[in-house]
Amino acid sequence: MECKKDIIDVDDLKIKEVEQILKNADSFREVLERDIKKVPALRAKTVINMFYEPSTRTKISFELAAKRLGADVINFSASGSSLLKGESDQDTLDTIKAMKADLAVIRHKNSGYVNYLAQNTDIPVINAGDGRHAHPTQALLDLYTIKKSFDRIKGLKVAIVGDIKNSRVARSDIKLFNRMGMDVTIIAPSMLMPENMEMYQVHTAHKIDDVIKKADVVYMLRMQFERQSKGYYPSIREYCRFLSLDLTRAKKMKEEAIIMHPGPVNRNIEIQDCLFSEKIIQGKIKINEQVTNGVAVRMALLYFVFNCGEK
Amino acid sequence: MECKKDIIDVDDLKIKEVEQILKNADSFREVLERDIKKVPALRAKTVINMFYEPSTRTKISFELAAKRLGADVINFSASGSSLLKGESDQDTLDTIKAMKADLAVIRHKNSGYVNYLAQNTDIPVINAGDGRHAHPTQALLDLYTIKKSFDRIKGLKVAIVGDIKNSRVARSDIKLFNRMGMDVTIIAPSMLMPENMEMYQVHTAHKIDDVIKKADVVYMLRMQFERQSKGYYPSIREYCRFLSLDLTRAKKMKEEAIIMHPGPVNRNIEIQDCLFSEKIIQGKIKINEQVTNGVAVRMALLYFVFNCGEK
Amino acid sequence: MECKKDIIDVDDLKIKEVEQILKNADSFREVLERDIKKVPALRAKTVINMFYEPSTRTKISFELAAKRLGADVINFSASGSSLLKGESDQDTLDTIKAMKADLAVIRHKNSGYVNYLAQNTDIPVINAGDGRHAHPTQALLDLYTIKKSFDRIKGLKVAIVGDIKNSRVARSDIKLFNRMGMDVTIIAPSMLMPENMEMYQVHTAHKIDDVIKKADVVYMLRMQFERQSKGYYPSIREYCRFLSLDLTRAKKMKEEAIIMHPGPVNRNIEIQDCLFSEKIIQGKIKINEQVTNGVAVRMALLYFVFNCGEK
Repeated sequence: MECKKDIIDVDDLKIKEVEQILKNADSFREVLERDIKKVPALRAKTVINMFYEPSTRTKISFELAAKRLGADVINFSASGSSLLKGESDQDTLDTIKAMKADLAVIRHKNSGYVNYLAQNTDIPVINAGDGRHAHPTQALLDLYTIKKSFDRIKGLKVAIVGDIKNSRVARSDIKLFNRMGMDVTIIAPSMLMPENMEMYQVHTAHKIDDVIKKADVVYMLRMQFERQSKGYYPSIREYCRFLSLDLTRAKKMKEEAIIMHPGPVNRNIEIQDCLFSEKIIQGKIKINEQVTNGVAVRMALLYFVFNCGEK
Repeated sequence: MECKKDIIDVDDLKIKEVEQILKNADSFREVLERDIKKVPALRAKTVINMFYEPSTRTKISFELAAKRLGADVINFSASGSSLLKGESDQDTLDTIKAMKADLAVIRHKNSGYVNYLAQNTDIPVINAGDGRHAHPTQALLDLYTIKKSFDRIKGLKVAIVGDIKNSRVARSDIKLFNRMGMDVTIIAPSMLMPENMEMYQVHTAHKIDDVIKKADVVYMLRMQFERQSKGYYPSIREYCRFLSLDLTRAKKMKEEAIIMHPGPVNRNIEIQDCLFSEKIIQGKIKINEQVTNGVAVRMALLYFVFNCGEK
Repeated sequence: MECKKDIIDVDDLKIKEVEQILKNADSFREVLERDIKKVPALRAKTVINMFYEPSTRTKISFELAAKRLGADVINFSASGSSLLKGESDQDTLDTIKAMKADLAVIRHKNSGYVNYLAQNTDIPVINAGDGRHAHPTQALLDLYTIKKSFDRIKGLKVAIVGDIKNSRVARSDIKLFNRMGMDVTIIAPSMLMPENMEMYQVHTAHKIDDVIKKADVVYMLRMQFERQSKGYYPSIREYCRFLSLDLTRAKKMKEEAIIMHPGPVNRNIEIQDCLFSEKIIQGKIKINEQVTNGVAVRMALLYFVFNCGEK
């Protein structure tokens, strides 16, 4: 490759580039419906999946995306590797690079770390989620899912509900949705609001009931129990009282409004189980579409990066 | 795919279908002897290997079978996945499905669980072993190995020896062998006999010596130490006295009779080590043939499921 | 395959064969610089990577080498496999063989164990490092890196510095470098010298300063902290005093002399961090070249073994 284009957060893409990626995702989405779901766009390229944090769906999604494009995939996770030998991440990345891999997809539990690694190597890096910082491919697939549902983006009202403070999904979503002209409200109790609220050009509310009737998109975040210190959050009872999406609330939503979640859902916490079996609500839930779209969007992003961001 | 054909146990196949699969296995067995061991029958298809229990041979066998047919394989095991995040298996399966995988191969330690997962998703599922319940691909490869050895099936006398109670291999073998017209005897001490004996149309015996002279196939089961509570079984000494296949016993076998085992063998428990180096016995041991045939039979089964069971 | 050629140590190759492998590595090295980094030399062959010891770079290097040649790769590590079931390694290897895999790459923590496995199976085996015994592919890639740097081999002065006693890299390097006509000096405190020194046709020294001005190649070994019993080695302070490569020492090296290390470097122990950012020294450090060359050399070795050592 003659270039190095890193995707650390959604800022690394111009609006025009985002639009191009969504457009290409449309073509790849179509490929995924075919009997033969492969195209040879990245034949003989090698993508390394470096996951320093447990993951199923993002890791498999990238693996599938790369393989559907004809690339070879090398999987690498922190356990089982020679990290035991005290190797620094920089050494690891130098090694990967020297082995002539073509691109690294990296997830890490420390915010900012993927950027640090990207700055210090010369193969392109895609951030698959770093700490509480950013998750750009999630934001792109969320945007794509919204666009597919409404056939437009500008002016839509999005309510993002839950643990904003600890969520890399919320951070990347808010940034991208704002830039694309959507109207974003975040809903969280004070203790789950980020500290530097002024940075985020959003409306705020504390109860889901304040926004449920007006929102086009109700985006439920996952409670990140694994990123909390004990006793920090509201009790699950409190959470359900003010934030959980139950049937009564879901029925107040606008007819065409949709429900999203980055997955995996903590059932009966963020979303009550009964919604999944309620006929009139089922159609609103776009969680599986998000997953399918994730493969297509990641195919489009890999294609974009491998082509140096051209076209 | 236009269909969903699950293989949870051998009952999911009609006798005609079993015969078709064995016939196709013959062609694939031939492919495995070639210098180029691949055929492009499942090109661009994706098989997900979901193993919730440790496994080497079954997992690698399915991985090889899928790759030999040109499919892409995504490996997924319980550790390292986001199960830590409290995701339900149903969520996992929905995810896989939404990612447009084409087929899931699942092993799980709970009996009946693979069936539950299959009922609740719409991609085809192949059971790679669930608890003490069933292991249909093992039964198919065992049947195929017997057919290859004798060039017939009907009327053959099979002795299945050992821990019947805890064995999914025994359950699937007995069912399939019965249906195919073989004459099955199970040999175990009372405490290793299943409770609902009347369900199994088999003869019973307590000592291997009762059957060793008449059997065409002596099928030694693996002691499932990992599925026992302590103190449950006979001592290893008792086991050897009544059930173990030693040289004296092996020499009493009919000239054309064969010895099988699902592997891995607990040497000097189920089968005495010396048999493996004894010239006149070696030829009877079909364990390696079972392994090789396993890849061919799984190729044939994948091919069958991907073609909706047609032909 | 019509043959079985094991590569347990560098002795398994004649000098002519080593030269042929290095020559082929040149062609493969060129392939790695292309946009399309693949050649179909081993299409439809299956390589099994069996790693019984944690590893990143050697494992990925073999995986890449095999995939670049068009082979399928089955990864297998000790954890997650059915070793829990008490399967013997011999059983595992028989299984792999019966599954019609074409070649096994094996790393094991016990010296001599890979040879034992190779003797008892009939598919070819390549040693990816066994205990303190041998690491032939490391020696080959080191030799290749030296040849590329100097455009000759014979008569070069190599200084191997550090934990000779516990190093399989040192053992294989010394043997191969000697055979190829290089002049080898090993530098270590007495407690890190091997016991049977007379076997190694080498000069010895105890301080890096004794050799730094004359050496063409300064080969820094990795401190194998994981293979030590506590309190066995010199303190890190002592190590740095006599063996560590710091800026003062590096500046005394001959103009064309080079620095090598098998990786991963314990920074500020074997090599001081500042060397990596010092302009006049940077060019001497061949660590990344070693990694890149490793893929090319392993491609050449796989190709050699698959062709039965012919040509």
